[in-house]
Amino acid sequence: MKLSSATAMLETALAEAQRMGVQVCVSIVDAAAWPVAFARMEGTPLGSIDVCNKKARTAVLFQMDSADFAKIAHPDGHAYSLENTNGGLTSFGGGLVLKTTDGTVMGAIGVSGASTEDDIAIARKAALCLTS
Amino acid sequence: MKLSSATAMLETALAEAQRMGVQVCVSIVDAAAWPVAFARMEGTPLGSIDVCNKKARTAVLFQMDSADFAKIAHPDGHAYSLENTNGGLTSFGGGLVLKTTDGTVMGAIGVSGASTEDDIAIARKAALCLTS
Amino acid sequence: MKLSSATAMLETALAEAQRMGVQVCVSIVDAAAWPVAFARMEGTPLGSIDVCNKKARTAVLFQMDSADFAKIAHPDGHAYSLENTNGGLTSFGGGLVLKTTDGTVMGAIGVSGASTEDDIAIARKAALCLTS
Amino acid sequence: MKLSSATAMLETALAEAQRMGVQVCVSIVDAAAWPVAFARMEGTPLGSIDVCNKKARTAVLFQMDSADFAKIAHPDGHAYSLENTNGGLTSFGGGLVLKTTDGTVMGAIGVSGASTEDDIAIARKAALCLTS
Repeated sequence: MKLSSATAMLETALAEAQRMGVQVCVSIVDAAAWPVAFARMEGTPLGSIDVCNKKARTAVLFQMDSADFAKIAHPDGHAYSLENTNGGLTSFGGGLVLKTTDGTVMGAIGVSGASTEDDIAIARKAALCLTS
Repeated sequence: MKLSSATAMLETALAEAQRMGVQVCVSIVDAAAWPVAFARMEGTPLGSIDVCNKKARTAVLFQMDSADFAKIAHPDGHAYSLENTNGGLTSFGGGLVLKTTDGTVMGAIGVSGASTEDDIAIARKAALCLTS
Repeated sequence: MKLSSATAMLETALAEAQRMGVQVCVSIVDAAAWPVAFARMEGTPLGSIDVCNKKARTAVLFQMDSADFAKIAHPDGHAYSLENTNGGLTSFGGGLVLKTTDGTVMGAIGVSGASTEDDIAIARKAALCLTS
Repeated sequence: MKLSSATAMLETALAEAQRMGVQVCVSIVDAAAWPVAFARMEGTPLGSIDVCNKKARTAVLFQMDSADFAKIAHPDGHAYSLENTNGGLTSFGGGLVLKTTDGTVMGAIGVSGASTEDDIAIARKAALCLTS
């Protein structure tokens, strides 16, 4: 994950959040789950900082979006308690795994602060930067 | 959150608990979740100390009462595992977010040691200090 | 350590700090190192919160003032690295162990935010509440 | 600390590092030590991520540059072990406290990855954004 790519995604995410009238923070990690870029909009609940970090971390560590992770890491899923590994993960949407066109994992983006649906929409919009 | 306001709330909470014949500890944090004031009555279970701190922390970090937080961070809620973020949060009542009349978050109060219902009642009574 | 005693010490410490024109936070723990009361004055550096807690904790866990603890838990002392036990302790003044007249440990008080000398003076003034 | 101010500082820091031919990561926190913005250049040692975060955290929590903090939290200083509080702090340069012209703490910036001297120079250059 290049910093220039992460910065482009971050700017897109913030612009999209502003357009939607919501406040979020955004975290982008590389393929090894290490932070590359982060930003928090004014007015975002402080608890969202750790949440967006964990969403990105969840997505890259298990190579799946955090919304999909939620289906297996849930009391009713087949890997209940998986969410308690790796320092605590997030079993709900807003974390997207980022891959190259050939399927190689590049990293992940996590968005938190708005509704889960809006967080996902913002993350998806930002992820488009990588392929366009 | 001024110390004088926190002290007034603390005294009200302790007086109310004494009137009700229960033992509690009370934690008050500022808008950034940093501790302002704390007190523990004799006889309060020691485990309640961390609980009241986390109730206050939960309320301010997500700008909602911990009883409302419980609805979304529950296995059947739409943000299951949210309680595992930010060092561990509390998904039950007794933490109230405190706001000014214009809606600005001032901080939060957490009460623990009695039944959840009593904890909530004591926290609400204390929170009245801010508006009276 | 009764809450009424802790509250009296806390009020004395805050009044003394105000008289001296400094900002501090104050932590009082019982004989088992569990928090009894805490308060933070406006303007106290946020880092002092953990410091005053650790000063009180250090004093009660080793039944000596944190200034005396500093003499042994120092690279040049005979118990170097002792300060890294128990979740991290403080090897400088401002934490006082509190004893009854027969020498039984009642708890400890920790003060932080001003100079170490002022922190110690404030803690000593507060500790007088117990014997007067 | 506004996100726009933090972003301006971040961009200045990255441009300065590029001009100097070094790789760094940069962390900016608000007055309550909560993250506002972060970026890591390609090639920066991964260990520097936590270092730049702790430099910024140290500076804001004790309202002094981390290079000054080093003087008191050193085994020969008067507050040895202070660096072990607040989850671990950094006793060397590269963290600058940021204040308004009237002395109010706005937050802090931490830079890590190059030599300590270069980290400090980059942080200082970035901090100029706030006053220009």
